[in-house]
Amino acid sequence: MNVNLLEKLLRDVKEGRLDVPSALQGLRSLPFEELEFATLDTHRALRQGYPEVVFSQGKSTAQMKAIIKNMLGRGENVLATRVDAAKGKALMKAFPKGEYREVPSTFFVKSHPVKKSGKGTILVISAGTSDVPVAEEAATTAEYMGNSVKRLFDVGVSGIHRLLHRKEELWEARVLIVVAGMEGALPSVVAGLVARPVIAVPTSVGYGANLGGLTTLMAMLNSCASGVTVVNIDNGFGAAYAASMMNKE
Amino acid sequence: MNVNLLEKLLRDVKEGRLDVPSALQGLRSLPFEELEFATLDTHRALRQGYPEVVFSQGKSTAQMKAIIKNMLGRGENVLATRVDAAKGKALMKAFPKGEYREVPSTFFVKSHPVKKSGKGTILVISAGTSDVPVAEEAATTAEYMGNSVKRLFDVGVSGIHRLLHRKEELWEARVLIVVAGMEGALPSVVAGLVARPVIAVPTSVGYGANLGGLTTLMAMLNSCASGVTVVNIDNGFGAAYAASMMNKE
Amino acid sequence: MNVNLLEKLLRDVKEGRLDVPSALQGLRSLPFEELEFATLDTHRALRQGYPEVVFSQGKSTAQMKAIIKNMLGRGENVLATRVDAAKGKALMKAFPKGEYREVPSTFFVKSHPVKKSGKGTILVISAGTSDVPVAEEAATTAEYMGNSVKRLFDVGVSGIHRLLHRKEELWEARVLIVVAGMEGALPSVVAGLVARPVIAVPTSVGYGANLGGLTTLMAMLNSCASGVTVVNIDNGFGAAYAASMMNKE
Amino acid sequence: MNVNLLEKLLRDVKEGRLDVPSALQGLRSLPFEELEFATLDTHRALRQGYPEVVFSQGKSTAQMKAIIKNMLGRGENVLATRVDAAKGKALMKAFPKGEYREVPSTFFVKSHPVKKSGKGTILVISAGTSDVPVAEEAATTAEYMGNSVKRLFDVGVSGIHRLLHRKEELWEARVLIVVAGMEGALPSVVAGLVARPVIAVPTSVGYGANLGGLTTLMAMLNSCASGVTVVNIDNGFGAAYAASMMNKE
Amino acid sequence: MNVNLLEKLLRDVKEGRLDVPSALQGLRSLPFEELEFATLDTHRALRQGYPEVVFSQGKSTAQMKAIIKNMLGRGENVLATRVDAAKGKALMKAFPKGEYREVPSTFFVKSHPVKKSGKGTILVISAGTSDVPVAEEAATTAEYMGNSVKRLFDVGVSGIHRLLHRKEELWEARVLIVVAGMEGALPSVVAGLVARPVIAVPTSVGYGANLGGLTTLMAMLNSCASGVTVVNIDNGFGAAYAASMMNKE
Amino acid sequence: MNVNLLEKLLRDVKEGRLDVPSALQGLRSLPFEELEFATLDTHRALRQGYPEVVFSQGKSTAQMKAIIKNMLGRGENVLATRVDAAKGKALMKAFPKGEYREVPSTFFVKSHPVKKSGKGTILVISAGTSDVPVAEEAATTAEYMGNSVKRLFDVGVSGIHRLLHRKEELWEARVLIVVAGMEGALPSVVAGLVARPVIAVPTSVGYGANLGGLTTLMAMLNSCASGVTVVNIDNGFGAAYAASMMNKE
Amino acid sequence: MNVNLLEKLLRDVKEGRLDVPSALQGLRSLPFEELEFATLDTHRALRQGYPEVVFSQGKSTAQMKAIIKNMLGRGENVLATRVDAAKGKALMKAFPKGEYREVPSTFFVKSHPVKKSGKGTILVISAGTSDVPVAEEAATTAEYMGNSVKRLFDVGVSGIHRLLHRKEELWEARVLIVVAGMEGALPSVVAGLVARPVIAVPTSVGYGANLGGLTTLMAMLNSCASGVTVVNIDNGFGAAYAASMMNKE
Amino acid sequence: MNVNLLEKLLRDVKEGRLDVPSALQGLRSLPFEELEFATLDTHRALRQGYPEVVFSQGKSTAQMKAIIKNMLGRGENVLATRVDAAKGKALMKAFPKGEYREVPSTFFVKSHPVKKSGKGTILVISAGTSDVPVAEEAATTAEYMGNSVKRLFDVGVSGIHRLLHRKEELWEARVLIVVAGMEGALPSVVAGLVARPVIAVPTSVGYGANLGGLTTLMAMLNSCASGVTVVNIDNGFGAAYAASMMNKE
Repeated sequence: MNVNLLEKLLRDVKEGRLDVPSALQGLRSLPFEELEFATLDTHRALRQGYPEVVFSQGKSTAQMKAIIKNMLGRGENVLATRVDAAKGKALMKAFPKGEYREVPSTFFVKSHPVKKSGKGTILVISAGTSDVPVAEEAATTAEYMGNSVKRLFDVGVSGIHRLLHRKEELWEARVLIVVAGMEGALPSVVAGLVARPVIAVPTSVGYGANLGGLTTLMAMLNSCASGVTVVNIDNGFGAAYAASMMNKE
Repeated sequence: MNVNLLEKLLRDVKEGRLDVPSALQGLRSLPFEELEFATLDTHRALRQGYPEVVFSQGKSTAQMKAIIKNMLGRGENVLATRVDAAKGKALMKAFPKGEYREVPSTFFVKSHPVKKSGKGTILVISAGTSDVPVAEEAATTAEYMGNSVKRLFDVGVSGIHRLLHRKEELWEARVLIVVAGMEGALPSVVAGLVARPVIAVPTSVGYGANLGGLTTLMAMLNSCASGVTVVNIDNGFGAAYAASMMNKE
Repeated sequence: MNVNLLEKLLRDVKEGRLDVPSALQGLRSLPFEELEFATLDTHRALRQGYPEVVFSQGKSTAQMKAIIKNMLGRGENVLATRVDAAKGKALMKAFPKGEYREVPSTFFVKSHPVKKSGKGTILVISAGTSDVPVAEEAATTAEYMGNSVKRLFDVGVSGIHRLLHRKEELWEARVLIVVAGMEGALPSVVAGLVARPVIAVPTSVGYGANLGGLTTLMAMLNSCASGVTVVNIDNGFGAAYAASMMNKE
Repeated sequence: MNVNLLEKLLRDVKEGRLDVPSALQGLRSLPFEELEFATLDTHRALRQGYPEVVFSQGKSTAQMKAIIKNMLGRGENVLATRVDAAKGKALMKAFPKGEYREVPSTFFVKSHPVKKSGKGTILVISAGTSDVPVAEEAATTAEYMGNSVKRLFDVGVSGIHRLLHRKEELWEARVLIVVAGMEGALPSVVAGLVARPVIAVPTSVGYGANLGGLTTLMAMLNSCASGVTVVNIDNGFGAAYAASMMNKE
Repeated sequence: MNVNLLEKLLRDVKEGRLDVPSALQGLRSLPFEELEFATLDTHRALRQGYPEVVFSQGKSTAQMKAIIKNMLGRGENVLATRVDAAKGKALMKAFPKGEYREVPSTFFVKSHPVKKSGKGTILVISAGTSDVPVAEEAATTAEYMGNSVKRLFDVGVSGIHRLLHRKEELWEARVLIVVAGMEGALPSVVAGLVARPVIAVPTSVGYGANLGGLTTLMAMLNSCASGVTVVNIDNGFGAAYAASMMNKE
Repeated sequence: MNVNLLEKLLRDVKEGRLDVPSALQGLRSLPFEELEFATLDTHRALRQGYPEVVFSQGKSTAQMKAIIKNMLGRGENVLATRVDAAKGKALMKAFPKGEYREVPSTFFVKSHPVKKSGKGTILVISAGTSDVPVAEEAATTAEYMGNSVKRLFDVGVSGIHRLLHRKEELWEARVLIVVAGMEGALPSVVAGLVARPVIAVPTSVGYGANLGGLTTLMAMLNSCASGVTVVNIDNGFGAAYAASMMNKE
Repeated sequence: MNVNLLEKLLRDVKEGRLDVPSALQGLRSLPFEELEFATLDTHRALRQGYPEVVFSQGKSTAQMKAIIKNMLGRGENVLATRVDAAKGKALMKAFPKGEYREVPSTFFVKSHPVKKSGKGTILVISAGTSDVPVAEEAATTAEYMGNSVKRLFDVGVSGIHRLLHRKEELWEARVLIVVAGMEGALPSVVAGLVARPVIAVPTSVGYGANLGGLTTLMAMLNSCASGVTVVNIDNGFGAAYAASMMNKE
Repeated sequence: MNVNLLEKLLRDVKEGRLDVPSALQGLRSLPFEELEFATLDTHRALRQGYPEVVFSQGKSTAQMKAIIKNMLGRGENVLATRVDAAKGKALMKAFPKGEYREVPSTFFVKSHPVKKSGKGTILVISAGTSDVPVAEEAATTAEYMGNSVKRLFDVGVSGIHRLLHRKEELWEARVLIVVAGMEGALPSVVAGLVARPVIAVPTSVGYGANLGGLTTLMAMLNSCASGVTVVNIDNGFGAAYAASMMNKE
């Protein structure tokens, strides 16, 4: 480790095994290692108990296996997202202790138990049944990152009573992830009912003027309710990651 | 009238004052006059009691005066939309019996009393205070077209209880015009609560990713609630006109 | 039911079986159930005779079967839209009393006879032969919702006489659905000929600068004729649903 | 002139005043002058009787005066487009023989009479009164380029009988320029009635989803009628120029 | 035919076989038939020798066969565009006298010889080899419509000498169709060299910021050279049709 | 208050002053008041010490004064955003105890001291000097909402050492708001250095391909670093509000 | 050669074998041949040692073989880009001395050794592993064009230390090609660290609001660091070609 | 300096004045200072003789004065871009030795003579007269950065002979900046004639479908000629800066 290296260098100087110009030269080449270790410290802090994450889309099964194997070798938990059924089957065969979930298209392998890290509950809400895969990606990711997670699905605004009926659950959450397609109205309604951070996740569910989710995304960015922040289309993982940051002590 | 002309032509043929080839030639030049009278009949039916309408934007005060004078000369009621305060003042001076309303930017002059034509009530709903000018354009136009109109303003989705509190009024309307900017969520919520036609009017209220109302428009076209149809951005007049068609016997 | 619950609570208070603070507490948890029954009433009113609707796109045949079976179990008529030929065949096998129509890609199963509900006729007009599937989705849906429906196909504006030739049919309709792709001009021409609500349905028929129907959609929103409202691209179902609302008593 | 220069060079070679290598060297530096004269020939042919054109937008009055003076000095007729009223007044003062027209915002000064050059008539059609300035830019430009021009204004598709009533005029034109804003439907209807080239000019008349004329432009490019070609938004001049090319012998 | 019907009606009136009121009634129901025959006259004039055209994209082989058979039955020449190789093979089998061309994806069957109708030559120019299919669609269509056609391919602006080398051919054409993808610069250069109408056809050749041809289309609409008009992306057929109109006497 | 009303109703029932059917009827009309009071409870909790907020853009000074006066009358602190210098001056005159800040364009009036509510520090980072107004709107809002706020301005990615030099400050924050225009890269770099929620605020600083901030917004939504959520263009207020939610106990 | 032709013409004039008018006529038809030889000279200079390039996308294997064979026949080195694995295999079989590289999808055949032409090193940097194919297209192309090339992959801004750690390599390059997807931030950071030209290559890596690379492209055009120029999405070849121009003496 | 600090720290360790843990702690806080000095070295190298640059748009005259004064105090030359006439006048008054140029809107003050730094000539080409301000911003900036600059204006592609006539000048340049609006075709033509880097600068000159320069920008990114890289709309400064990097030894 760098700290050890630095300590050794200083000891070498102290004890006369290294003269000052050579030490200086050595240090000049160090700063970024130095930086790196600093950063890694941060990252380590950041990752306490968090899994390493692999975005599978566009990667072959062979590439996936190699990456996961490497990560497991470092003693990390590993979460792969956007894993289709065929890849999931192949990964299960390669890592029989892993867990493949079809709806959120996630694959997870433990090196160590997931450490509970969040302070409160993350509530994942979805508007329609078609939004469930993205909502499940969010919920599953948040669980694997050590959070307590609840789900509240199929409560879109065209039947507003379904949401209002569950307001207690809204009030109990510490962070809310709201997943919706179409006109993307749900986060505005939710944010008007709670005093907690609301992360809006637009989905690409829709057709025509939906423009592959772009309309939903834009609508959410124009929410008339304060407290809403937005992530990219279908980015359930990103919402869960951000929610985990918000849910920390 | 063309019918008379036709009758005369036929009598001329019958009585030998016109030979067949000449009559044929005469008929060839007729069909569109024929068409026109047919169409005008339709239009007359359409306009029973409806005012003539002038879109003032981009027209000078002088042009406005000439047009209105001409229409009044035909015995019509006249409604001018998008009349700013300065033009409004000038028109009031020119037509002292007229009525200028500042918020909806409308100017109206009667030649005859407005005839009640609608069967039920048109309810105009607005999400925020900034949407009121467009909502008032809709409400005012609907009134001048002979409908019974109610208003329900400032009931946006970020405080959903404001809308739900007034659900009786929603249920009583025969046609609903819902005016909203930002994420445009209100028509979806309203359409989920009623079994009547809902006309969504996006407004250009907003900034940044709102894109001058385009985001709102697109969101409304993606409404997850059935029964919603949409008009152009800020088109309160168009919504009222369509609502009048729907409200007819 | 909630009303019974409420009555019981009040009686319990009246008769001393429940003290006021406990009753108060009980009422605090009630309002949304209260809301729900109110809303359900509405929905029941709304749906008198209307079928339940399933949007099939993105759903597996297995999911479709389960949903339809569930709905039939509630005694409802069921309409599935966007059902491709393969799914249609499978559903016919599962529900032999159903009716699959290939052009509009609809599947319908009756629990009870369709109740005539509309006051007048809904006329569905299409511009070109490629627009027929969307036009048929609209016409079929409107029929299953209990309306009297007429069709007027292949009367696009590049041969305007085809439309004008049929003007009587235009004048007789109570609501008009106009389906067109390309430059989307037909609704403007139709709305200029009638005094009834015109619902414009843009289709994704076209290429290049058509942008998957977006150009058509935008053009329709800019119709120079008053009385036109617009739904999402290819949304024949939505147009029919809105038309049914307009055609009610 | 280059032809003279070339002839002189060749005579010098012939008569021994110039040796071959020097002549060769001289020719190597010539080709583009050569090209230029060739091209100029073309351009001269092209411009027979056509005015030089100045696009005034973004140019100061002083710049305009200098450019026009220079062109007049070459014996050309000069047409300036997009000349607002203030500039027009200043130019009239500087060139009292000029002609300023307010509606099309054109200024024209003759050095020589306009030579009739077109074979038939160019018919300029406009949909609404707001489209007239662009239509007049087209009509005026076509006249100054020596064409016989007719105008047919305010015949938009929402009152289709107005156009049909004038079909004889449509049939008599050799080239048709159709100017429209909003949904841009008029060129499709016109092209369905004639067997002549139709140039569509979208205008920036409209608001909201009109997107400054972009919707109209796109719609026209998707015309369902064959024979329509399109120019840039508000480009009346360009349409007239192209029409002049089409109207040549 | 309607003319005959009309003549008969008039003769019946003349000769007392029909009274005036009945004739009047008969005429009232005629106007659009009247209109139709007028229009058909136009169309007949328009089509002298022109083939009927079928846009094959999105049509099944069975549909194609039926349509073509029907058209041949009316004694017309038939041109089908966008016919892929498989469909082409099937059509050749069904109509062995037809002609399938693979590059432009056209299928043509004669009922009568193609009548030469154009006055001059239509020159079809393409920028790159990838633009050839669209250019060939234009050239082939123009030929089948009776024009004399020349081709000048692979003369894009990045090697400008290739175009300039052929300037004589440019000068000899009466109408020029310029097909290009990428930055769409070629029409501007060509229009600067000739005094004839230039029809620009953008192709969808390109990637990334090309946006499926939209960039090319927009660039062409902004041509700095006068005399350029534009058609939809990949619309070789439309360009040829418009060019035929321009090339008429 | 509703609670009192309910209590009174129940006591009236208990003590026989109100029969059950009447009470039931009274309750049926209550639910939304019921709902409202529930919601208001939430809102009250939400707002503990938070100011009421007025978005000034598009409101007249007179409207502003009336709104602020009304809010102060309810004993609230009031924050007005987007207050230009002229309005600011007028408001200072009307409410001399208020505080107008020119750079963030905010006006604030206290009814009571701001209560410290956040657990940690909110760090507001800006990329360039032009982003400062938006950054200050965020910082100022966060302060008025009771948070401890630090600022780190002018540390854009083109001089990455400026940011890295301050990494301790990054590590100490509980929530980070990162304000940037142009390519919007700063949030990605910051999120790679910390394990806390990062709220990205795109600004409309830029020109040309910046598209009024849309490019920056889109880039931020595509951040390659996890943990970033995004708000609308120039929405410093919204970022601060969301950050306050995240910074709560 | 034209020079010979010209010389002969001049000698013919000099020696009386050709009179001046005929010579003049002969010269009039020459200019573009003249132009062409001039241009070809340029092109020859340009191509010293550079390979001929074939863009394979959209070309059949047969077409590819013919083109390559033709180029080899002219004694050129040939580089084909966008060659998928199947085509690559076929080309290897047809030209066994060729070299197919799978990651950059390039195929290269030598007619002569690649001549080192660049003055310094071109450094190709990529942000993520998914950007590697485009980065390799750039690196490979630059190598085949005779440049000394280094690679620095997987140094995206979310782990900024990875880049900073390698700053010596940045400083040593003469031209830098920076390939990135997502928010496209890397070129800004790199350009802030060096005083050399930086060519940014956006990739289509991403989803949702990435819009197929358009967001990345736009972001790069808005780089806050000076010295960045941009090429089309995924255009590794174009970047390498431009870099070669910059790397010349 | 940090180097001195480091040396002192090492000597203190060596000589026992500082123990190893304290030194280690001291080093942990150093790395970014270390980084900074490294980076500053780079920046110093980068800026040899280059002016500091201020983007004036959106800055007040007072802010401008303060910034320039500060920069001059550091002994730098200062270049301000986007300085309108009023600001220019004020700056001339404040810094009488400065130089204001109206067309490119630049203001320049020397602290020391501009050092010639470029190896060859930068040629700035513009298509039309309206593009001159942007072209002059590029040319002026390049001059102030120590380059030899030539100008070639008004050589747009609609009169291609104007460009070809000047080909010698094209061939002599080491870097070419090509400024154009409208369809943006000029860079493609230029890049086809030279073997040097071509930087394309789109301008916002145009209207309608030009979309404020976006069309031009997109077209340039799709150039069919290799060797073209692109900067943001109207970014003459950025092009000159990048050209200076390319023109270095």
